[in-house]
Amino acid sequence: MAKIATVITNLFEDVEYTDPEKAFKDAGHEVVTIEKEAGKQVKGKQGEATVTIDKGIDDVSAKDFDALFIPGGFSPDQLRADERFVEFAKEFMDAKKPVFAICHGPQLLITAKALEGRNATGYKSIKQDMIYAGADYADQEVVVCQDQLVTSRQPDDIPAFNRESVKLLEGK
Amino acid sequence: MAKIATVITNLFEDVEYTDPEKAFKDAGHEVVTIEKEAGKQVKGKQGEATVTIDKGIDDVSAKDFDALFIPGGFSPDQLRADERFVEFAKEFMDAKKPVFAICHGPQLLITAKALEGRNATGYKSIKQDMIYAGADYADQEVVVCQDQLVTSRQPDDIPAFNRESVKLLEGK
Repeated sequence: MAKIATVITNLFEDVEYTDPEKAFKDAGHEVVTIEKEAGKQVKGKQGEATVTIDKGIDDVSAKDFDALFIPGGFSPDQLRADERFVEFAKEFMDAKKPVFAICHGPQLLITAKALEGRNATGYKSIKQDMIYAGADYADQEVVVCQDQLVTSRQPDDIPAFNRESVKLLEGK
Repeated sequence: MAKIATVITNLFEDVEYTDPEKAFKDAGHEVVTIEKEAGKQVKGKQGEATVTIDKGIDDVSAKDFDALFIPGGFSPDQLRADERFVEFAKEFMDAKKPVFAICHGPQLLITAKALEGRNATGYKSIKQDMIYAGADYADQEVVVCQDQLVTSRQPDDIPAFNRESVKLLEGK
């Protein structure tokens, strides 16, 4: 089954991590959380979820994973301030490995200059950013692009996001 | 003296509101805080500052103000999810009234499509967003564009941001 790299830091949108994580695990996949340092605990913005980091960014390579998952909230904007996370995300996009990004998750892909010419969606506040970044933005619950990139807008879209992400992994 | 509209919500970067607010008031200007409803209290992300909102967005017009101030943190991204704040910011830019935006503040101007062809700076995480939005991005403590738009990157830049913002108001 797939080994899914998950980049996450404080103020992530709680259910945008916990719900997909459960769906991935229920489907038999492994979820590996990545931030600056292994063992650190990061907290969701709603105060509902705490995540213990499995691996530090300096100790991982995109080559070791089958897919990338980017939960939303204010986590992606903080991660993209660190070039290592931008480069990590870029490697998945360049290698055409599956990438699952919800809500503010596409912000990391904008900074990686990886949305040019891609069909995608994202939280309404980043819509114009995504359009400027060259994405063909669609206001719908889930967008699957080139059998690689799955994006959704917000917590309400999680069932569709999980369904399409798990389905895409099944086809790999 | 100038009447400065300040759009702000929860998780603003504390000192990016409190320090410029003091500088504006010390120079004799009036600072009016604006969010969805008057009387509401919003809190900074560092937990140091609480701001009571003076005016609801539906009760103000750009015509009633001389300048716009957009503090950073996670406040601007939330404000731009509401079309009323985007339109409000756009009116200041269109009218060529002074606009002071620090850190994530330019996010509101991106969504207003008001950065095309402008010299500007902003927090490093939004650098690529600003470039895609058509800004000529400079990695420096303060950028003053066309005697109207003052932008800075981060809390360290506050003295330069305050100096140039107050100076620009003096010239009006």
